[in-house]
Amino acid sequence: MARLKPLSGFPEFLPSGQMVENHVTRILEETFELHGFAPIRTRAVEPMEQLTRKGEIDKEVYVVDRLHADPHDTRSGKDRLGLHFDLTVPFARYVLENAGHLYFPFRRYQIQKVWRGERPQEGRYREFTQADIDIVGDQTLAEHHDVETPLVMLSALERLHTELGFPTVTMHVNNRKLSEGFYRGLGIADPMAVLQRVDKYDKIGPDAVRKLLVDELNLSDDAAAKCVALASIQSTDDSFIAKVRELGVANDMLEEGLDSLNRVVAAVNKAVPGRMVANLKIARGLDYYTGTVYETELTGHESMGSVCSGGRYESLASDGKHVYPGVGISLGLTRLLAPILSRGELSSSRSVPSAVLVAVNTEEDRATSEVIASALRSRGIPCEVAPKADKFGKQIKHADRRGIPFVWFPGVKHADYRDADTVKDIRSGDQVEADAGAWNPPTEDLHPGVIGTW
Amino acid sequence: MARLKPLSGFPEFLPSGQMVENHVTRILEETFELHGFAPIRTRAVEPMEQLTRKGEIDKEVYVVDRLHADPHDTRSGKDRLGLHFDLTVPFARYVLENAGHLYFPFRRYQIQKVWRGERPQEGRYREFTQADIDIVGDQTLAEHHDVETPLVMLSALERLHTELGFPTVTMHVNNRKLSEGFYRGLGIADPMAVLQRVDKYDKIGPDAVRKLLVDELNLSDDAAAKCVALASIQSTDDSFIAKVRELGVANDMLEEGLDSLNRVVAAVNKAVPGRMVANLKIARGLDYYTGTVYETELTGHESMGSVCSGGRYESLASDGKHVYPGVGISLGLTRLLAPILSRGELSSSRSVPSAVLVAVNTEEDRATSEVIASALRSRGIPCEVAPKADKFGKQIKHADRRGIPFVWFPGVKHADYRDADTVKDIRSGDQVEADAGAWNPPTEDLHPGVIGTW
Repeated sequence: MARLKPLSGFPEFLPSGQMVENHVTRILEETFELHGFAPIRTRAVEPMEQLTRKGEIDKEVYVVDRLHADPHDTRSGKDRLGLHFDLTVPFARYVLENAGHLYFPFRRYQIQKVWRGERPQEGRYREFTQADIDIVGDQTLAEHHDVETPLVMLSALERLHTELGFPTVTMHVNNRKLSEGFYRGLGIADPMAVLQRVDKYDKIGPDAVRKLLVDELNLSDDAAAKCVALASIQSTDDSFIAKVRELGVANDMLEEGLDSLNRVVAAVNKAVPGRMVANLKIARGLDYYTGTVYETELTGHESMGSVCSGGRYESLASDGKHVYPGVGISLGLTRLLAPILSRGELSSSRSVPSAVLVAVNTEEDRATSEVIASALRSRGIPCEVAPKADKFGKQIKHADRRGIPFVWFPGVKHADYRDADTVKDIRSGDQVEADAGAWNPPTEDLHPGVIGTW
Repeated sequence: MARLKPLSGFPEFLPSGQMVENHVTRILEETFELHGFAPIRTRAVEPMEQLTRKGEIDKEVYVVDRLHADPHDTRSGKDRLGLHFDLTVPFARYVLENAGHLYFPFRRYQIQKVWRGERPQEGRYREFTQADIDIVGDQTLAEHHDVETPLVMLSALERLHTELGFPTVTMHVNNRKLSEGFYRGLGIADPMAVLQRVDKYDKIGPDAVRKLLVDELNLSDDAAAKCVALASIQSTDDSFIAKVRELGVANDMLEEGLDSLNRVVAAVNKAVPGRMVANLKIARGLDYYTGTVYETELTGHESMGSVCSGGRYESLASDGKHVYPGVGISLGLTRLLAPILSRGELSSSRSVPSAVLVAVNTEEDRATSEVIASALRSRGIPCEVAPKADKFGKQIKHADRRGIPFVWFPGVKHADYRDADTVKDIRSGDQVEADAGAWNPPTEDLHPGVIGTW
């Protein structure tokens, strides 16, 4: 085993980092379940036919083949299997496959790894974890779910902020109908082409977008200027409507989009004031959204881009007879955590779950330490027994290295009695007599905490 | 989207089944953490060079390639990537890669999917989840960890038994040194070859094993008979030692194995009486164990084979300078759960996490229901708001279908007051006035329970 270099694009964490990821994951799971979202997990592979439907993304798919495929198992072309690159494609397939056993509207969360064969670069991964929530209806899905879905995700992000010190977030929202209606009102025949260029607004700036619209799409200077002006509109209240009207474009779909966006932003900001901004340059250009679209920025870390995005699909899935509209948001867990964990800026307060190291007096007396550990565990106190009956100084060092706050010393055995046990807080040096059937560590020491700052 | 047939060998669950798997997973995680095991998660892929070291298994590896690999990224031969087929190979690599940042003995648990390109058949999967615990030392690892590791896994399995009604288990244990020493004492030069045939004892029976040993390995009738006689020895106490001695074979390694096995079985059975059996036919023939080996049977479901296996490696990993011995056990979570979940014999008490459906009086008054839901959630009560202000009968049906036990009716709004809220247990029909800031469901209704029997 000589090749020890990490594989670029496949982040892994030390246990202290993994415990942070698990802590975050549990907060997400708890929040999603509090809101009635049921968990599902889909297989890692899908037929290539499903994975290549999205167009642009296909070059990033990892194909999976048996090393020695036997002749009875030959899959060719679109029958081949690939690793899923998001959780939306497998979820849509899952809904169709299990529609007869699901009740709609169906609310599910799904936290899994996905894979993309991208060239690795800062903030890009080949394997990463996403946490998705979606609500999917049978034939129809009411607009209030466009309010509910971001509120659930914002509720999870708020817990990460208050409990773990993560930055606050702002969710930026737009409505595809608003943009598309506006473009159509300008007489533009291919609104998607405009959307995909407006999508680059933050990266290349308004002037460059306008130039693209004129040069590549042959828009008039006036139309291009209006598209860019639309994209520059933002507000946390309904003032975005007046600003759009000032541009003097009339279109029914535009009106529909304005109304819907207004209702969504108002309802979300009523529940969590200031967390949502109507931002008319949000495009999600590569995805097939048809209504509300969401992106989310971390305050003070806007350059990371959106950590949490989604939107509404008129047809998340369809089997010809039934159409399943959906609205969902996906949190990029690895994208959010891997940079700060790998820089060590966020970590666990210890590298093991144990709150207590039970010392061992002698190897012959190890069973005594095991009994103490069992008593502590039966009351939910994570602990481990020292691996060796070393001198106590060495056993304390064993705990100290791992960040275990307490060392338990079993009372020494005498002919007909045993000394009282003692427990030592190795941070303060305080040592007190203790009974394994009754002692408790301070609540904040029971489990590893998340330490560090953004 | 027309292809809706599940992929054979890639099990997926409905939400009610997934909640059972998650429940089981949380019990495992809690138990492992109570014993000081830290979580890690490794990437899904390893270089093929690592994956093909184990010999026999290589034909089952899934190779992973980018659909449109670019010329700068060409991986060939052993540099190619494959999906891991167990969690031991990636863990060994992780230990070497991170040795400088880990403290030994290092205790970790890892619950992840693995992939094997096997021909699917009953009880065999191409994608399945394993839950592994291992303790790994730097240069040495004391024998008491051979006692500790099975006790941790037995503790988890005991919780599955008492809390979820899983069958009890018996762990069968042997020691490779015992078998190898015995074979060497008989003058056999290739003990591994014998071990791999003894491994088939349960499948083909003692007579067929003896025949294999004579026909394929040219053992004498007497030696073959003794090998088979050794394999037939079982005991929960130390009587296996006398039975081995009766076979009249003398060898130092045999003695070492007998002593070690005796200590392990005695210590485990002292802690959890009757859960461990010395069973001298346990071989784990395809794995590179060097000492204690474990297999685990579910009482009444012995035909499933071992649900939980492992053993000790003198060298789990080595970088030339350092050798890292380890002892570990792997629970086949999918193997354990998928058959009983897919038969519907084990399920969740409801298909959603929600304990309460908050009804909606009118769409205009939806915000009232949202406020009630928030109040319930702030006290940890999972709930969802009805998707539509249907007639109450229909809203109750919405809850009933999903198994949600309670429906909350917001008091009707009048000009200057609101009627009291009521909550209805739709199983009994009992309906009482309730305050969303104070009401609690019975503890057993707060979260979905696991129902059904093995």
